[in-house]
Amino acid sequence: MNVEIVNTGSELMLGRVLNTHQQWLCRRLADLGHVVTRQVAIADTGSEIQTAVREALSRADLVITTGGLGPTSDDITRELIAEMLGKKLIKNLDVLAHIENFFAKRGRPRPQKTDVETMVPEGALVFLNPTGTAPGLAIRVEPNLFRADKTPSWLVMLPGPPRELRPMFDVSIAPLVKREFADEIFVCRTLRTTGIGESRVQEMVADELQPLVQRGMEIGYCARPGAVDVRLTASGAEAVSVVQAGEAITQKVFGANVFGYDDDEIEQIVVRLFVEKKKTIALAESCTGGNIAHRLTNVPGASGIFLGSVVTYADSAKKKFLGVKPETLAAHGAVSEPVAREMALGARAKFGSDFAIAVTGIAGPSGGTPDKPVGTVFIALASALGVEVRRMQNTWDRETFKQVTAQQALDWLRLAVSA
Amino acid sequence: MNVEIVNTGSELMLGRVLNTHQQWLCRRLADLGHVVTRQVAIADTGSEIQTAVREALSRADLVITTGGLGPTSDDITRELIAEMLGKKLIKNLDVLAHIENFFAKRGRPRPQKTDVETMVPEGALVFLNPTGTAPGLAIRVEPNLFRADKTPSWLVMLPGPPRELRPMFDVSIAPLVKREFADEIFVCRTLRTTGIGESRVQEMVADELQPLVQRGMEIGYCARPGAVDVRLTASGAEAVSVVQAGEAITQKVFGANVFGYDDDEIEQIVVRLFVEKKKTIALAESCTGGNIAHRLTNVPGASGIFLGSVVTYADSAKKKFLGVKPETLAAHGAVSEPVAREMALGARAKFGSDFAIAVTGIAGPSGGTPDKPVGTVFIALASALGVEVRRMQNTWDRETFKQVTAQQALDWLRLAVSA
Repeated sequence: MNVEIVNTGSELMLGRVLNTHQQWLCRRLADLGHVVTRQVAIADTGSEIQTAVREALSRADLVITTGGLGPTSDDITRELIAEMLGKKLIKNLDVLAHIENFFAKRGRPRPQKTDVETMVPEGALVFLNPTGTAPGLAIRVEPNLFRADKTPSWLVMLPGPPRELRPMFDVSIAPLVKREFADEIFVCRTLRTTGIGESRVQEMVADELQPLVQRGMEIGYCARPGAVDVRLTASGAEAVSVVQAGEAITQKVFGANVFGYDDDEIEQIVVRLFVEKKKTIALAESCTGGNIAHRLTNVPGASGIFLGSVVTYADSAKKKFLGVKPETLAAHGAVSEPVAREMALGARAKFGSDFAIAVTGIAGPSGGTPDKPVGTVFIALASALGVEVRRMQNTWDRETFKQVTAQQALDWLRLAVSA
Repeated sequence: MNVEIVNTGSELMLGRVLNTHQQWLCRRLADLGHVVTRQVAIADTGSEIQTAVREALSRADLVITTGGLGPTSDDITRELIAEMLGKKLIKNLDVLAHIENFFAKRGRPRPQKTDVETMVPEGALVFLNPTGTAPGLAIRVEPNLFRADKTPSWLVMLPGPPRELRPMFDVSIAPLVKREFADEIFVCRTLRTTGIGESRVQEMVADELQPLVQRGMEIGYCARPGAVDVRLTASGAEAVSVVQAGEAITQKVFGANVFGYDDDEIEQIVVRLFVEKKKTIALAESCTGGNIAHRLTNVPGASGIFLGSVVTYADSAKKKFLGVKPETLAAHGAVSEPVAREMALGARAKFGSDFAIAVTGIAGPSGGTPDKPVGTVFIALASALGVEVRRMQNTWDRETFKQVTAQQALDWLRLAVSA
């Protein structure tokens, strides 16, 4: 089965908004067993929309368009598609009642402009909009004259705003897809690793997975700041068993370097582990500038295990808040093993936490020296067992440097609390 | 001129990652005067990539592909395109030296797998990767046999990771585009406002801009967390003058609520203003959890004006690091006007900064009360003039809450240092 998505909107082509529909719809459709084969974005002009939809109908069993169903002058998808399919637009009284009700509930008169939203192509299925006014539409194109063999296709039109599109897909379109297209078995499992580079990850696991690839499993590798994802996918009757076997092999190869699965972020894992073990965290951040604290506090429930962070950009703050000795700073400089050590010990003592992580380094773009080039960072971990310091070389742009360094610190917390 | 983008990657079609390349490249190309006409995403399988690139070459003067240039087995774009164009792959010694150096700098051996990255199609321009290993490639397809009239096209291949693609585009591709394609006049100016809701922004400015709309200017409004952008665009001979006139009107209507232009982030403006005025900042963050410090320290040069932050999630940390009085916490609770006041005063005194901002609030999803529902936040600003506290109600999900609250705090710093 072939599925294509057509996103319309001039704001997309001007690069003024991010196209979140692609990821969201692709994810939902993959979960239903149908991997999208092609996604196209075009401006909302007449010829572009008709060309793109015609091409999609020439290949796909299911075509989903987004955008262009609203009440303003650039919302022209409904009209253009009806014209292309030679279908009349007919006023739909259910839609009219829904829109009247939508505005009545909000104590506002129905704008005349919404008249256009009540017009639907003849023969279309109509999905009232649970969170807005423009309905979704689905047309079975039969015979499909755009296809060489005339096989029918489904054409689904969804409104552009994510808060309208998403519930409509879940409530109305997913059931339609399930009814009209045989469920295909499709399994996707992502193992998220950290601490190993992308090419090394593949070297370590590819040969071991090869027998499963011969049984139809596909492997994908995706490098992110401070993480490499190994994605295992398969379709068909054997899908569950080959992906499970692949997961077991991958897990064995990478062991504790696997920090999570699918959408897990390392900070979520850290918060969960610390909650389970009833341990607390404090931070002393210099070069990460609050990034570690920010990521931990994005996780609901972080307040149960995270006591706080001291972001000490200035040397004076390292002395005052963490008790770093002036002579240590003078002898070794702020970016050094001894200062990292004193920062971690200071944070643990001052906050009274079980674990404390300290980071001090050179984020760049300036500030490097031959001994300590931009990207040099010292990470220290203090716990009941004492304190340990590691030196890393994270040669990246400033924001990636912060992200990668934070990832290393969080990963160390993950491993330390599990030990 | 026709520009098309082809994004390759099975992870895109599976909905596992967001395609940020589309927005970023569309934006950059629009800034160069070339609005992208079509963007296509497809899986990284042989037939899909070749079909999509062939179709793009049949229409476009410039085709940009992303992804598939790395060292792993699913990185096949280079090979497929060379095959399609009938070009041999030749080992490039500059690329080899660059990759050797990349790994030497990081003290790691060069993985064998990176061999493939040194192979470039004959006749291609090669762009060494400033932030990674895989080079970018550009080929002038001449004659372009995929086009009816054989007009030559440029085919540019960029690596997938954003931290590699973006600098490479700016350093190497933008100059190529400027050299090879006549600039078209297209002007886009975005005024970034804060402190006013989206529909109110439109109400305030739309009528005043109407005469310019009749002269061909387009207006777009975009709501972001804690900001509303007003985007003015125009093409053709009058473009510069109508957009300049529109900017003057918009600036006048919103005054100090305009915090920046185009890609400005409020933290960049704050750092610039504090550097200019030679003033320093300290922070006491509770509910924003380090987000304000993280944003300020994303800006190169922040170390000159940012002394540090105390992220005090635990009440004990508020007392110990900031000198908040136990009786104030007992009488009013951590989320209160008096605690915010003492946090700001404490941070200013401890860090010895000119300005200090403190935030304490309820990020949610739990922790709200009838008096202080989720989203309640107190922001305090301490300076030589004393201390002032504002109460805000930021009813959003947890991450948006942090973002919006940080935006309000940063905006207050911006206005305070300019006063």
